[in-house]
Amino acid sequence: MPKTSQQDLLQRFQPIFYPKSIAVVGVSQNTLKVGSSWFKAIIDMGFTGPLYPVNPHGGKLLGYRVYPNLRSIPGDVDYVVVSIPRDNVPALLDDAAAKGVKAVHFFTAGFSESSDAYGAELEKKLVEKARQGGFRVVGVNCLGAYSVEGGLPYGPVGRKGKLGSVSFVTQSGGIGEKLTELGTARGLYFNKGISFGNGIDLDGPDYLEYLAVDPKTEIIGAYFEGTRNGDRLAEIITKAARAKPVVVWKAGRTDIGAAAARSHTGSLAASPAVWSTLIKQAGAIEVHNIEDLSDALLIFQMLQRPQNKPQGNGIAVIGGMADGGGGISVSASDACADARLNIPQLTKETRDKLIDIIGHVGSILRNPVDVSQTGSNPDRIRQAAQAVLDDPNIDLLLVQQDIGVFLRYFPFEVARTVNNIFIDLKNKQHKPLVLVLPPGTHEAERVQLEQDLARAYIPVFPSMERAARAIKSFTQYWQRRSSTGD
Amino acid sequence: MPKTSQQDLLQRFQPIFYPKSIAVVGVSQNTLKVGSSWFKAIIDMGFTGPLYPVNPHGGKLLGYRVYPNLRSIPGDVDYVVVSIPRDNVPALLDDAAAKGVKAVHFFTAGFSESSDAYGAELEKKLVEKARQGGFRVVGVNCLGAYSVEGGLPYGPVGRKGKLGSVSFVTQSGGIGEKLTELGTARGLYFNKGISFGNGIDLDGPDYLEYLAVDPKTEIIGAYFEGTRNGDRLAEIITKAARAKPVVVWKAGRTDIGAAAARSHTGSLAASPAVWSTLIKQAGAIEVHNIEDLSDALLIFQMLQRPQNKPQGNGIAVIGGMADGGGGISVSASDACADARLNIPQLTKETRDKLIDIIGHVGSILRNPVDVSQTGSNPDRIRQAAQAVLDDPNIDLLLVQQDIGVFLRYFPFEVARTVNNIFIDLKNKQHKPLVLVLPPGTHEAERVQLEQDLARAYIPVFPSMERAARAIKSFTQYWQRRSSTGD
Repeated sequence: MPKTSQQDLLQRFQPIFYPKSIAVVGVSQNTLKVGSSWFKAIIDMGFTGPLYPVNPHGGKLLGYRVYPNLRSIPGDVDYVVVSIPRDNVPALLDDAAAKGVKAVHFFTAGFSESSDAYGAELEKKLVEKARQGGFRVVGVNCLGAYSVEGGLPYGPVGRKGKLGSVSFVTQSGGIGEKLTELGTARGLYFNKGISFGNGIDLDGPDYLEYLAVDPKTEIIGAYFEGTRNGDRLAEIITKAARAKPVVVWKAGRTDIGAAAARSHTGSLAASPAVWSTLIKQAGAIEVHNIEDLSDALLIFQMLQRPQNKPQGNGIAVIGGMADGGGGISVSASDACADARLNIPQLTKETRDKLIDIIGHVGSILRNPVDVSQTGSNPDRIRQAAQAVLDDPNIDLLLVQQDIGVFLRYFPFEVARTVNNIFIDLKNKQHKPLVLVLPPGTHEAERVQLEQDLARAYIPVFPSMERAARAIKSFTQYWQRRSSTGD
Repeated sequence: MPKTSQQDLLQRFQPIFYPKSIAVVGVSQNTLKVGSSWFKAIIDMGFTGPLYPVNPHGGKLLGYRVYPNLRSIPGDVDYVVVSIPRDNVPALLDDAAAKGVKAVHFFTAGFSESSDAYGAELEKKLVEKARQGGFRVVGVNCLGAYSVEGGLPYGPVGRKGKLGSVSFVTQSGGIGEKLTELGTARGLYFNKGISFGNGIDLDGPDYLEYLAVDPKTEIIGAYFEGTRNGDRLAEIITKAARAKPVVVWKAGRTDIGAAAARSHTGSLAASPAVWSTLIKQAGAIEVHNIEDLSDALLIFQMLQRPQNKPQGNGIAVIGGMADGGGGISVSASDACADARLNIPQLTKETRDKLIDIIGHVGSILRNPVDVSQTGSNPDRIRQAAQAVLDDPNIDLLLVQQDIGVFLRYFPFEVARTVNNIFIDLKNKQHKPLVLVLPPGTHEAERVQLEQDLARAYIPVFPSMERAARAIKSFTQYWQRRSSTGD
């Protein structure tokens, strides 16, 4: 992509993700109502520019003067958040044009996605007026722009999360909301996001094109239900995936799903096979649900730094810390094989070391390695993990640690000691670690250990299957990147 | 199966699952060591018959006299738990024969599953001696029998769970342990279980044959890595599945998995396709991991009672309580369609009712039903759910309630009120309910609501995909049963 076009793109989206000033149209005195919540959420995000609440009745909100309409605002307005009934939208559009705002985001719904003709007609008028008025439309029927640095919350109850490098584009506000919530739970940190709803002016592909060149965005997640221009989307996903990992969830893949998508955003879906081919040929990562979307984003965020990135695709698996290693080794093997991971043999040297550390009788010293015969002795677990990490065939270590079962045998301090061994090993050498902490009876303790690991940039998954799929996405993407020289 | 054979079977396994007296060989003064833990766990299970600790040094353990060997025990001994080094096993076998015990369970490992020739030889001798001595062997290399009513713990740290009707047979002690732990977490209640390890005398199929006729067992879960006699296993699974739901997880399906299985239990695995065909033709439910195994057992346990069992296979889905219904509806649709669930259209009458309750603009009133426009008003949610349950096309209601997202908008009391609506609806009409409570930022609250639902016999799943797969197993099994007239 030529430099100028990149600059143009960044320029065009500047008022949306980094507005200098914001107006919120549709606030009320009641701070629990959605417009006022939105206004408060912008303050809580630490937005530092001029901020204007708007309501025909005027008054005060949280110490701010409420303006009766956009025209009456004294300063410039870059970005407008609109939460008013659809019937009041035409008048708002005239005001926006007169005021010379740069972008208007409509939380307001009831347009082409609803089944009445009036809504569809209103939507058409909206696009025309925006074109004439010289401003861009975000939405309609969406949560709009989210920008941690730009001071824009993800929705009326959105909170300022820790600043990160993952950005997302979603046709469903709810999916984005769940993603940000999972981010908080799992240590996934966002830079920006966009819920584009009906995408009547700026559409999904437009935002994706921007995120592809945005220097703050290192990883992209995308949720689409359909698109008006498949060729353009394919081209943009390809461009984006050449620059950074792009994880794409195309929903409405099935007949029932496509019918639901028509009711939701009015999207016409291409066939699932067409989408799947498009995503794969573009070099993006295809996922089918919120779990796999968050898993893929998590592993790219946690492991993509140069010091962590695996040099090859040889995976070693360690399990059996108090959880009866045999069956776990067998089932972990199946999960890895199903995901087509490369689980190489350990060298003779490593196996000899493991015999010294773990002992021979009752042990499985192939890969996966069953460390149950260490009696969960932390020193021996550390030595075994170190021996495996030192193996030249191994590029990444996958560890299963079942906290619920472990705590049947040992106090929490031992679980934490073992957890810290993996954090320490991750920090003291360059090969990445991935942990599986399956849920069970001790969720509070499990969450605590997961958060410790997340802070150390070790991605945690709730099952071997999910870890294996995420690892496959990760190694496959980087193999492709190195083979195409991108 | 003829009546006499059933009686014989029940008789044969009586001393294993309902022993009148138990000896634990290999206790020590240190109650933290495994033999002593086992002894203590039997006491904690409430075993009421004579109980004898055995150790050559004699002494006392928890107030019980420790006998130097089996022969010196004054009364009869039905069941012996053995936790001693493998080299001491031959002498123990002579004692067991002399004492006339009925069954000996070997926790002791280091036989054919280890790679040394001595272990394999020892195992052969063990089988011969047991035959000559007239007692049965449980194991070797396993956690043995678990019986909530019979007073046998599942392993040395096994605890008495709530008595239930689910029983399991597993070639891996660790898989059984995780299953019992998930039982505690998810409200899955066991009757009995067996970890058979190398199965050198009584093998997996033998236990399965017993559980098939055991009147206390209503649902069977099975984990196998391989078997010596595939034809016999196929025959027994078929018989068992005709009598009750049998969920089978065959691990070691892949090359890497099969190699791990050889190291674990010395199992030779048939090809995965052969196993899969065997399981399906037998009318059993095939699963591939611990999550799906526990999911399937859970749904059969929760819904199989006559008052809950669905009459048809029409599933309705409700979502969108604060979690932005549109995307959730689309992705739930895909998940249900992937599992090949029947998601029928709602009748015109139901849709008209829903328009009255939820309103038209912004709502998705097809199936899945998006109730986001109720503003999570509990009365309207109840009315909408009731309207859907009243629909003649609907046999089961699947509800997604995302607690983490919900609690961004509402206090916990509202979440609990909504939760109680579903419990109330479940109790006041005959169609079953299934809930999806995805994990996120509020695990403590989520666990609390999940436990409330579990107590009301509403099965809870962490994702729409897992719920849909479990429902499919359930409806498919009962359709098959009614079509074959079993």
